[in-house]
Amino acid sequence: MRTDSIRRVVRSMRGYQPGEQPLRGDVIKLNTNENPYPPSPRVLKLLRSLDGSQLRLYPDPLGGRLCEAVARRHGCGSDEVVLGNGADDILAMCLRAFVERDGSVGYFEPSYSLYPVLAEIAEVEVRPVELGADFEWAMPEGYTASIFFMTNPNAPTGVLFPREQVREFCETFSGIVVIDQAYVEFAREDCVDLALELDNVIAVRTFSKAFSLAGIRLGYAVGPSELMRALIKVKDSYNVGRITQELGCAALEDVRYMEGNVERIRQTRARLGGELQRRGFRVWPSETNFLWVRPPEPGARRLYELLRDDGIYVRYFDARRTEDYLRISVGDDADMYALLGSLDRIMAGAGR
Amino acid sequence: MRTDSIRRVVRSMRGYQPGEQPLRGDVIKLNTNENPYPPSPRVLKLLRSLDGSQLRLYPDPLGGRLCEAVARRHGCGSDEVVLGNGADDILAMCLRAFVERDGSVGYFEPSYSLYPVLAEIAEVEVRPVELGADFEWAMPEGYTASIFFMTNPNAPTGVLFPREQVREFCETFSGIVVIDQAYVEFAREDCVDLALELDNVIAVRTFSKAFSLAGIRLGYAVGPSELMRALIKVKDSYNVGRITQELGCAALEDVRYMEGNVERIRQTRARLGGELQRRGFRVWPSETNFLWVRPPEPGARRLYELLRDDGIYVRYFDARRTEDYLRISVGDDADMYALLGSLDRIMAGAGR
Repeated sequence: MRTDSIRRVVRSMRGYQPGEQPLRGDVIKLNTNENPYPPSPRVLKLLRSLDGSQLRLYPDPLGGRLCEAVARRHGCGSDEVVLGNGADDILAMCLRAFVERDGSVGYFEPSYSLYPVLAEIAEVEVRPVELGADFEWAMPEGYTASIFFMTNPNAPTGVLFPREQVREFCETFSGIVVIDQAYVEFAREDCVDLALELDNVIAVRTFSKAFSLAGIRLGYAVGPSELMRALIKVKDSYNVGRITQELGCAALEDVRYMEGNVERIRQTRARLGGELQRRGFRVWPSETNFLWVRPPEPGARRLYELLRDDGIYVRYFDARRTEDYLRISVGDDADMYALLGSLDRIMAGAGR
Repeated sequence: MRTDSIRRVVRSMRGYQPGEQPLRGDVIKLNTNENPYPPSPRVLKLLRSLDGSQLRLYPDPLGGRLCEAVARRHGCGSDEVVLGNGADDILAMCLRAFVERDGSVGYFEPSYSLYPVLAEIAEVEVRPVELGADFEWAMPEGYTASIFFMTNPNAPTGVLFPREQVREFCETFSGIVVIDQAYVEFAREDCVDLALELDNVIAVRTFSKAFSLAGIRLGYAVGPSELMRALIKVKDSYNVGRITQELGCAALEDVRYMEGNVERIRQTRARLGGELQRRGFRVWPSETNFLWVRPPEPGARRLYELLRDDGIYVRYFDARRTEDYLRISVGDDADMYALLGSLDRIMAGAGR
């Protein structure tokens, strides 16, 4: 085979590993932080009334109407918004727009494991910053990079970095700060305003989590129009399809429905955290729709496997800083009840 | 503003310019080679019956069911198929997977104007190959590049390169040949079999043209499984959404409907070609859903502008080899009637 035509770095890399998407419908999926509740009734209604004959036409390349809706949400101009085929598309665009060949990519460790993969594909230097013992903010003095990807609230740890620390970092950092806010709707505070105030900050949002729309692939960037214009130059022309643009608009017309689901998930999160603590788990304070936990015996990896055998998928990251932990998405009450039941059976067995 | 954080090449580049997507609904759009007929009734029916609650879940990252349907269509294995967010996504992946920093990108000139833009973003050398005086095949002896993007049938010229010439080139070329078959359903012959036979050939297809689904963003690559695995490593994990995957499957269940539309478009293409020739246009033999024509007075640029004033959008490429030509998408009978009427009025005025 013609493997010598494949780039060396691509031959040797493993690629980003998304959480399993089991094709069986009977599993309880707590491994990719999907929302347990369906999208807004407005979205479902629009879906049933879409004019399919229009699908013969290309979408609006910039998604003007949706950009305007996003801009209204954040009180900015539509030239301060760029749409992506999911937030991952935006993250890849940022690297293409802002990192020269001899540039570098920064991110916390642990955080979203896609960042080093994007850097590897681009063959640019990585400058990971190790978080503290409890996964708290730990930025070295004088740290530099071309771009810094900051998941805030962080994943997989669920921790929200303090607003003033984030601001101070952005104000002094010499490169572009991309604040990846995939989970921000579940947090007690936001920092999208930094992207509208500072000239080197971009906020990235997704419809996948709080809006229950992981299936349509929609994310966006908010930030200085000059940086947005650079993203537009390096994006695929028609990166967001017609249906996705329309459903995104419908979702933004019903933000209250999303907020109601977020509130339910927060309440479930608090209850689940308590139940896990009572079972000997260490539970990190979460500002997201998942919990980052350190399980007791039989330990994270074994528990992950045993839950999986039981048809319950949680996320296990097999790496130095994360190998003793599980990331568990907050589902609905039935999911949580099943999870706790399964844990009780497993842990009773482990104790025998 | 922080423009110094934008890559130099991105600052200076213009970016790919897609054909205009006018927001007014009352124009006749013959500028982006969309299909004048709606998608299959099976697609429209499925669209109305989609289960919107499932949109809360991520799509299958590899789109297994759709890959299998594509594989059945081409008589290959599903490991010889990779899905893209439109064919453009596949083209970008090919560059990421197969072109090292010191590599090079080849393509015919004129052909799809995205290729040099992708190369510019990646800052790799371009090795364009100038087509002959009538836009026919003209490959220099001993030509090399890391990858060669070959639009076949070619755009914007509509010319199909002879099968044996393509095969001979692929067999001797040292790099990867990406045969961009966006328009192949409208042609008299195909060469997807080369991608299944040779170890350095990838065929790229789209649902945007023959299947009337430009709005859903769906394309795919067919080729050696080893090359497909490389593409998978460099693609966005969830690059194709749930609705797109489902509608793509429905479209492939009704290939005969697509073929019926293709036949109508071919017939309209032949009639339109004759009408334009009678009006003094030179018309290239087309194997696509558009015509490449060299208009008489008042010339291509002026005609483009005057048609546009009349609410009829055709495509004009303002570059050395293309400035005397127009690319006109084949629409339905009403579109063609309006186009000819407008041309007659304009040309009568130009003759006065």
